[in-house]
Amino acid sequence: MRRGLLAAALLTLLGANLHAQDAAQPPKHRSAQEIIDAAPASAWRDLDPDNTLYMELPGGRVIIELAPGFAPEHVANIKTMARGGFWDGLTVYRVQDNFVVQFGDAEGEEAGKAKPYPAGTKTHLPAEFARSDKGVRFDRLPDVDGWAPQVGFVDGFPAGHDPRTGKLWMAHCYGVLGAGRNTPPDSSIGAELYVVIGQAPRALDHQLTVVGRVLKGMELLSVMPRGPAPMGFYEKPEQRSPILSIKLASSVPAEQRTPLQLLRTDSRAFIDATEARRNRVDDFYTQPAGHIDLCNVSLPVRTPPVK
Amino acid sequence: MRRGLLAAALLTLLGANLHAQDAAQPPKHRSAQEIIDAAPASAWRDLDPDNTLYMELPGGRVIIELAPGFAPEHVANIKTMARGGFWDGLTVYRVQDNFVVQFGDAEGEEAGKAKPYPAGTKTHLPAEFARSDKGVRFDRLPDVDGWAPQVGFVDGFPAGHDPRTGKLWMAHCYGVLGAGRNTPPDSSIGAELYVVIGQAPRALDHQLTVVGRVLKGMELLSVMPRGPAPMGFYEKPEQRSPILSIKLASSVPAEQRTPLQLLRTDSRAFIDATEARRNRVDDFYTQPAGHIDLCNVSLPVRTPPVK
Repeated sequence: MRRGLLAAALLTLLGANLHAQDAAQPPKHRSAQEIIDAAPASAWRDLDPDNTLYMELPGGRVIIELAPGFAPEHVANIKTMARGGFWDGLTVYRVQDNFVVQFGDAEGEEAGKAKPYPAGTKTHLPAEFARSDKGVRFDRLPDVDGWAPQVGFVDGFPAGHDPRTGKLWMAHCYGVLGAGRNTPPDSSIGAELYVVIGQAPRALDHQLTVVGRVLKGMELLSVMPRGPAPMGFYEKPEQRSPILSIKLASSVPAEQRTPLQLLRTDSRAFIDATEARRNRVDDFYTQPAGHIDLCNVSLPVRTPPVK
Repeated sequence: MRRGLLAAALLTLLGANLHAQDAAQPPKHRSAQEIIDAAPASAWRDLDPDNTLYMELPGGRVIIELAPGFAPEHVANIKTMARGGFWDGLTVYRVQDNFVVQFGDAEGEEAGKAKPYPAGTKTHLPAEFARSDKGVRFDRLPDVDGWAPQVGFVDGFPAGHDPRTGKLWMAHCYGVLGAGRNTPPDSSIGAELYVVIGQAPRALDHQLTVVGRVLKGMELLSVMPRGPAPMGFYEKPEQRSPILSIKLASSVPAEQRTPLQLLRTDSRAFIDATEARRNRVDDFYTQPAGHIDLCNVSLPVRTPPVK
C-alpha cells in the first residue's frame, strides 16, 4: 500500500539522490546536496567566534552570526551587552505565529524593574537600516523580487540592493535577527531582539536595523508556544521562555565552542547548488520552477571536516 | 527607559491605529484592520461546513477549509475518509522546521500494520496539480511574482495563474494543505497530508495536489517539536503527536461547530486592506514597500457578529 509520504520529494530536497549511482547512465542533474558535498575546502569559510553569539536555552544552543558590515554600531553594542551578561536570566517574552520571537528584558520599559545595562552600553544609536554598496561584494541572484530591485548575498547574508541609490540592506528572511525599536527610527540599541520564524516579513526591510541571523538552532525558537495576548506577548511572566545566557563565542573556552563552516556565496559550489534548486529536475520534480526566492535559499552550514 | 519593543510596528500591523481618532485632523491612511472592521456584511461569506474539516488535537481545534474547486477528486476522497474516521487516533509523524508538518498513518507503508481505509475510499486518483481557468473568477494582485506569471485569489485561496496555458493552481503559502505522494504524480489519495509551516516552498507548486488550507489553529501545528530524523520524521512512535479526530464540520452537531466568516477576495474591503498593507505609511512605517507577496496576504477571518 503506497500512501504518498512526500518522501521522495524530500529525500531529493536533502540531496540524497538515490538514483545517481546507476553506472550505466551518467546522472543528468546533480542535486544541490551533491554539489555542496563535493565543494572544495576553499569554498568554505570558518565562522568567526568574535562575530558569533551563543544563545543558551534549556533545550540547547542557538548559534547566531552577527553582521557588523550591516549594523556596526548595533553589533558593537550587542557585543558589549553580551560580554556584560545582559541577557543572562532574561526571557523570550513574545512569540507571534508566522512572524517573530522576541527576547530581552520583558520589564525593560518599567521604571525600577528594568535590568541595568552593562557598563559601556550605549543608550542611543543611529538607525542602521541600510549600508552603502561602495566596495562591497554583492553575490547577486538572477531572480526577480518584488521588494528590491536586486537580491543576493553579502558575506552570506541575504540582502536587497538598489543600484540607483547605492544602498544595500539585509532582507527579513527566516532566521534573520533584528533590533526591536519604538516609534523613532533611532530608538533601537540592540537590547531587545527578534528572530523571524515565518513567511519572510519583507515589509520590515528598511524599517528596522538588522544585526545578524541564526545559523543553527532555529528549531529551539520556532517551537516556542505562541503568546495568547495581541502580537504574541505572553500574559503571565511564568509563560516566558528563559534564556540561560547569551555569550560571544570568543568569550567561551575553545573546547566549549561549536565549530561551523559556511559555504561562501561567491563560490562555484554555492552558485551551482542554487541553480540546481532553481531548476530542480529528478524523479519527483518534473516541472522545474526556473526561479528561487531569496528567502528560500538557506546558506549551507557544516561541521568542519576532521583534518 | 525605552527599549524598542517593535511594539509600534505590530500594533499598526494589527491595525490598532492609535492616532486615527484625532478629530482635528482626518487620518490620511486607514490601516488594513480599520478597513476590514468597516467592511459591510456583504463583504463576508460563511465558511461552508460541508467543505470544512475540524482536526481535533489535545491542545484544541484546527479548522481547515477544503478546496473542491482545485482538487475535486482528492477532496471527495478526504470527505469519505473523514466520515469513516480514518485519521481518528492517527498522528502527526513528521515536523520539519521551516517546511511542513505531515500527518496520517505513520505505518501506512508497512504491510499488516496499515490502518484500513474506510469503505468507499478510492485508492487511486488522478494528479490534480492545476485546474483550468475557464469560468473561474481570479482576483488578481498587481504584484510581481517570481513563481507564476500572475498571482491572486480564487474563492480566497492563494493561487498562481498562467494566462498562456489557462492554468490555475494553489500556491504553497503558510497554512496550505497538500496531499503527500510517492514518486508517481498520481500516487496521492489524500490519506497523508501536509501543512506548510515555514517560508512558502513554492517550488512544490505544480508538483503536488493541494487540497485546502488552515484557517484557524495554525499555532497548534507550528509549535510541534521538530523531528530529529532526516526530513523531520520522529524516531520513536511515542514522539508523534496524536490526532484525536478529523471530522467534517457538517458531521458535527451544530452547537459544537465553530462559526467563521471569511472576507471575500473580490470585495472592496479586501482590495483596500491589501493596498493599505502594500503601501503602509504610519508613525512606524515611513518607507512604503509598494509591494506585497502573495503569501504575505493572510485572509481575514472572523467570528460572525451576533445578529
